[in-house]
Amino acid sequence: MLISKFCKSGDLVFMEKNIFPRLIHASSASSDMRYASGFNAADEFTWCEVDGEKFIVVSALEFARASAEARKDVRILTFYDVMQALPENAPARNILVALSRFLHVDSWCVPASFPLGEADLLRENGIRVEAEPGDFFPERAVKTPEEIEKIRVSMRATEDVMRFVRDEIASAGVSASGFLTRKNGELLTSGFLRRTVESEFKRRSFSADRTILAGGLQGAAPHCIGEGPLPAGFPVVCDIFPRSDETGYWGDMTRTFCKGPAKPVVRKAFSAVKKASEEALSMLRAGVTGKAVHECAAEILEGAGFPAKRNADGIPCGFFHGLGHGVGLDIHEQPRLSPGNPEPLKEHVVVSVEPGLYDPAWGGIRLEDLVVVTRTGCENFCTMEKELEV
Amino acid sequence: MLISKFCKSGDLVFMEKNIFPRLIHASSASSDMRYASGFNAADEFTWCEVDGEKFIVVSALEFARASAEARKDVRILTFYDVMQALPENAPARNILVALSRFLHVDSWCVPASFPLGEADLLRENGIRVEAEPGDFFPERAVKTPEEIEKIRVSMRATEDVMRFVRDEIASAGVSASGFLTRKNGELLTSGFLRRTVESEFKRRSFSADRTILAGGLQGAAPHCIGEGPLPAGFPVVCDIFPRSDETGYWGDMTRTFCKGPAKPVVRKAFSAVKKASEEALSMLRAGVTGKAVHECAAEILEGAGFPAKRNADGIPCGFFHGLGHGVGLDIHEQPRLSPGNPEPLKEHVVVSVEPGLYDPAWGGIRLEDLVVVTRTGCENFCTMEKELEV
Repeated sequence: MLISKFCKSGDLVFMEKNIFPRLIHASSASSDMRYASGFNAADEFTWCEVDGEKFIVVSALEFARASAEARKDVRILTFYDVMQALPENAPARNILVALSRFLHVDSWCVPASFPLGEADLLRENGIRVEAEPGDFFPERAVKTPEEIEKIRVSMRATEDVMRFVRDEIASAGVSASGFLTRKNGELLTSGFLRRTVESEFKRRSFSADRTILAGGLQGAAPHCIGEGPLPAGFPVVCDIFPRSDETGYWGDMTRTFCKGPAKPVVRKAFSAVKKASEEALSMLRAGVTGKAVHECAAEILEGAGFPAKRNADGIPCGFFHGLGHGVGLDIHEQPRLSPGNPEPLKEHVVVSVEPGLYDPAWGGIRLEDLVVVTRTGCENFCTMEKELEV
Repeated sequence: MLISKFCKSGDLVFMEKNIFPRLIHASSASSDMRYASGFNAADEFTWCEVDGEKFIVVSALEFARASAEARKDVRILTFYDVMQALPENAPARNILVALSRFLHVDSWCVPASFPLGEADLLRENGIRVEAEPGDFFPERAVKTPEEIEKIRVSMRATEDVMRFVRDEIASAGVSASGFLTRKNGELLTSGFLRRTVESEFKRRSFSADRTILAGGLQGAAPHCIGEGPLPAGFPVVCDIFPRSDETGYWGDMTRTFCKGPAKPVVRKAFSAVKKASEEALSMLRAGVTGKAVHECAAEILEGAGFPAKRNADGIPCGFFHGLGHGVGLDIHEQPRLSPGNPEPLKEHVVVSVEPGLYDPAWGGIRLEDLVVVTRTGCENFCTMEKELEV
């Protein structure tokens, strides 16, 4: 429990934490593992840091690929190397027990998500294991120039496909009953557009799932992905967030389009969200708190006549989610732009800025850009204009 | 440790295990969670079983969707419901501690992958937590008729796209230097074919990643996904394994194609692999052991003049992986067709049958079908013929 205390005290963390051997056992589906190792593997492997020296332990079959692809500050060991540290007749011929002996470690700091089965086995073998309750690598929030470039590449693909979505909606026909139609006359559904969008991403070596394309009143629920025919004259919330198959870094962007003229209340909501976005973006810079940026946007939306409240059916209306979140190897990571984050933003964090308004009476509007925070402001990865009626 | 003992003793397991409250805390990226809950969510939630009654605990925002989508044998609780069980001033306002109080449980059996941070917090609050070292749901190996139908649907999409791959290779041109070319004259690379294949899957609402399209000598490494131009006159190993975005069930299938005439050794290897596949398929039925089916294929391949060995550079040649694995909500699950599985196969397990031969001198051949084991034989989900030269 002592170890974790260090992780609360800002910059001191990094120095102090290095005193304690750290261990991760996961596949690179764990972003901490991918970050620490630079290695992408479907099977579980092990990363550790002892006295500032870093290692990964992989099977002999993966050694060549790991040598080529892993971070250069990581030494690569094979299971075979490590198992030599255990006597043939050891009761638990476990790779983590062997690694502890191999590196003379009797106490590990591990992520809170560390597998209990492995932890208990280490403890039964006299090795102390403490879970870090907070972020295992708080430094992940601040991006290196290389990471920023990877996110820029992901955002280029994201914007490419967003323009494609805009054009699909803009060029759609409208059926007699008021729904969007494809060139072949069939209805343009959320499902068809989702399959098309995700397929377009795959052509660019990106993976996207559960892409939000929510039309009409479905857009009033921020996490509804949308299904069925898309209605004309109503906003369609398009929130697309692909991950690079190559680098693992995400893009994230939202636009809201309306085929044909929108109702006055929808136009008014769009203007308010656009203004909230512009004001929030203009106040973003290192040193401003996540809370302050969120509150700036919330006040504009409330002031425009859209208070956060529940309607007569108890359904939330207005702006009732956080303004933004960090994006990197995880789609949602630190830092948050929300009332719960009183910390000043650091230089080179990458955050989404996504004010929105929702009402089951007319649907939803959300506009999301992704930016990197700088000393004097922010750089917006999105260049695409914010337009409603297409 | 006592609890886990019960999990070794076959059918008794289920009855005995129900005595112990069971708990999972994960997102549905954990196939155990998806299996137990029937609910698909990106965020973590909780499943448990107490005295044979099953629950999931989700946020209030997810309640409506969970009610519609979760398994009907599961009762849905919200965080709010459960937190009522903790006094306002409780030191750890943790959902799992609250759930334990709410359901009067003082001892949980959890998967080995259970997050250590949560387990330690439960233990600090006097609640016993034991990790199950084996499979948490061994019954997952045996598929219900509904699951078999879902896998059948996934295999239909898989075979569709495999025919597309075959046609792309068959209709390719050949450059002066002996590489496959596209209609526009550019080289047909593994990367381009992979992007096309994975994009085709997305059009069908399936997700595929790291699709293996390994041509020439790259095919000699069974897990090499392939890169660069595809050579004519050499085998191209095409191992495609998409997951349904809707159901979560995987497909898995391999064919090996050669554009133009193959060398005699490649033809001979292909015939041997095809024969090993046919013989293994014909001996599969409930009651046969995974080991016996593997050995049948291994003997045919060895007998055809392709012994498993290392070449002069120490690189493995011949047939050196397991013959097959279970497929369901995980791409690799129980049971195995391998020397390490002396257990008789049960009726309605779904397994891949994938003999292969590899040699850095000429590349690789692998042929993989997916089948459901029946009382009298097996039903093959693959109808596509096994042909080499296209």
